Amino acid sequence: MNPKIAAFLCTHAPATPCLVLDVDTVEQNYRRLLGAMPLARVYYAVKANPAAPILDRLVSLGSSFDAASFEEIEACLAAGAAPDRISYGNTVKKESAIKAAFEAGVTMFAFDSEPELRKLARSAPGARVYCRILVENKGAEWPLSRKFGCEAKMAVELMKKAAEWGLDPYGISFHVGSQQTRTDAYQAAIGQVAMIFSDLRDAGVTLRMVNLGGGYPVRYRAEVPGIDDFGAAIMGAMAEHFGNALPEIVIEPGRFMVGDAGVVESEVVLVSRKGEDDPVRWVYLDIGRFGGLAETEGEAIRYAFRTPHDGGEEGPVTIAGPTCDSTDTLYEKSNYRLPLALESGDRVQLLSTGAYVTTYASQAFNGFRPLAEHYI
Amino acid sequence: MNPKIAAFLCTHAPATPCLVLDVDTVEQNYRRLLGAMPLARVYYAVKANPAAPILDRLVSLGSSFDAASFEEIEACLAAGAAPDRISYGNTVKKESAIKAAFEAGVTMFAFDSEPELRKLARSAPGARVYCRILVENKGAEWPLSRKFGCEAKMAVELMKKAAEWGLDPYGISFHVGSQQTRTDAYQAAIGQVAMIFSDLRDAGVTLRMVNLGGGYPVRYRAEVPGIDDFGAAIMGAMAEHFGNALPEIVIEPGRFMVGDAGVVESEVVLVSRKGEDDPVRWVYLDIGRFGGLAETEGEAIRYAFRTPHDGGEEGPVTIAGPTCDSTDTLYEKSNYRLPLALESGDRVQLLSTGAYVTTYASQAFNGFRPLAEHYI
Repeated sequence: MNPKIAAFLCTHAPATPCLVLDVDTVEQNYRRLLGAMPLARVYYAVKANPAAPILDRLVSLGSSFDAASFEEIEACLAAGAAPDRISYGNTVKKESAIKAAFEAGVTMFAFDSEPELRKLARSAPGARVYCRILVENKGAEWPLSRKFGCEAKMAVELMKKAAEWGLDPYGISFHVGSQQTRTDAYQAAIGQVAMIFSDLRDAGVTLRMVNLGGGYPVRYRAEVPGIDDFGAAIMGAMAEHFGNALPEIVIEPGRFMVGDAGVVESEVVLVSRKGEDDPVRWVYLDIGRFGGLAETEGEAIRYAFRTPHDGGEEGPVTIAGPTCDSTDTLYEKSNYRLPLALESGDRVQLLSTGAYVTTYASQAFNGFRPLAEHYI
Repeated sequence: MNPKIAAFLCTHAPATPCLVLDVDTVEQNYRRLLGAMPLARVYYAVKANPAAPILDRLVSLGSSFDAASFEEIEACLAAGAAPDRISYGNTVKKESAIKAAFEAGVTMFAFDSEPELRKLARSAPGARVYCRILVENKGAEWPLSRKFGCEAKMAVELMKKAAEWGLDPYGISFHVGSQQTRTDAYQAAIGQVAMIFSDLRDAGVTLRMVNLGGGYPVRYRAEVPGIDDFGAAIMGAMAEHFGNALPEIVIEPGRFMVGDAGVVESEVVLVSRKGEDDPVRWVYLDIGRFGGLAETEGEAIRYAFRTPHDGGEEGPVTIAGPTCDSTDTLYEKSNYRLPLALESGDRVQLLSTGAYVTTYASQAFNGFRPLAEHYI
């Protein structure tokens, strides 16, 4: 565990559940990403963790921002981000939110359908727009289904319309799924984008930007490829498909930037068995799926644990949250084992929980308040 | 739709997303339940909706309360509930919360394991305790797995220990799963409880209470049996297994009390297709799984919709929430159809959404604030 966080936990023994996040690690991750993809511009996916200390630090480092809502745009502006560094990346926006963003100076917008493009033409005239396409999500531990993006053929038609309707047809985006563990996932998608660039060039529309989305993985229980491997695979594919005429490259890392910067500390509320001879213990924590660990749905994201008894004899466990809802069970099928000495009142740590935890927390399910947050 | 709610929506056109809930309907549901099960004492499951106007009304009607946390106990006390009308029904509690509840005058506690019983003996000496057992959840649309309850044999041993440890061995509880659609689900469980009563009587421990939990269903898209049918099935099983020596009967309705009292109003943010020839439209609302509609996970609870175009031609739709998370999709496989005329900006209503919506809402996922609440 990060020694700065370990020292904070030891010195302050903060009330649980809480997230402790080391903002210096975010800075290191930002620099590692620039090192791996020097030609890319980083748009931090604010939704991963919108806390002001993170946004402040990233503004000071020159980062750009990918916002999912007008509220996230406001948070970026409050941190001092220039509006031309903010992309409104949600393809589904109320027209009132588009207007508010445009009036605040934001000029870069995502879309994936004609009705959305129409809203942009009306309420953000002249803005740079990029169309999100559907791509394969194979290899992603948190895949993104068909909710966002349109078919490539439709993207071509929509970009022509964007030009006709007075918008600036800026580029194409895709997303290979979050916690993507295969470096080749980006390659096929980049090929598809290059075809769209070419089709549109023939039609007299010149795009200038490729948005590769996010998805870069964090190490949880299992090893994942390093960011340099992703950088090499991506830049190789870009060179292969675009040659020397490289477009602007945008990336939208979220999890990669903040995931391993944070640790959730939780108290064990109960360790019990369902019958005398049941080999499996149930371990109930004071944080669960509705307290912020939403990505444990389907046991998709499997966090690593630290306990005060690590090194002692272990046995199989089911790990659950504190609410009266059975769905609030974190891990039942992922073969978790924890020390036999674990008991009520012990404090445990969930590692690499800096991303997608705080904002997911329900406002008051079963009366439990959201976890506390400490940025150090 | 409830005419009082319809009038409120028409007159006030409140900002969306919001919940509008008719407190008079809650009162009617409480009275219907008493009518169907006159011998039962109602402990309202506060987690279903802990809003003060609901708790106030129920206090005035003489209801008791089932609380999942000390925070929910505080809400009941603030509404004027007497502490001896409150059951601390979560089998997983921090010892500090047990102590706080006991000091506030609460004397009725659930448990399902020896370590929890030990906490109760230490921090709530002399309290009435009831043990939750595992039962079948067949027929439930929101089943409860093995997270709560222990095997019957273990319950017998634990109740003996409760008496030894100076606690009051009060009774047995079970839960047949939420939105339970089969009236016979309670019958087998009641038989199991009667056996435990009998085994303990032989051992010199006399229990006095059976807690039947909740689970009574609400009409969403499909018809469900009426509450009178559940009452008849339950009282028949109680008479069959307990004869004239009926114990106290506790029920913990949540969904049944508030579900059909509420309507969520939402704005359509976008209606689009993924390709020119795609027959399925995607309908994006300004509320989704992380905005409170958590029970749509796995499409378990299927709400009914009203739109301004009802009666017009319909087509197949996938219905999703407003966030950049693909998991935030409500219905993709449940054959929903909505009017072809539906478009961005339309207001739609989700019926019978009074239960398990407000508190589930994430505090700020993607920057979206929780839905507004109006109690009328």
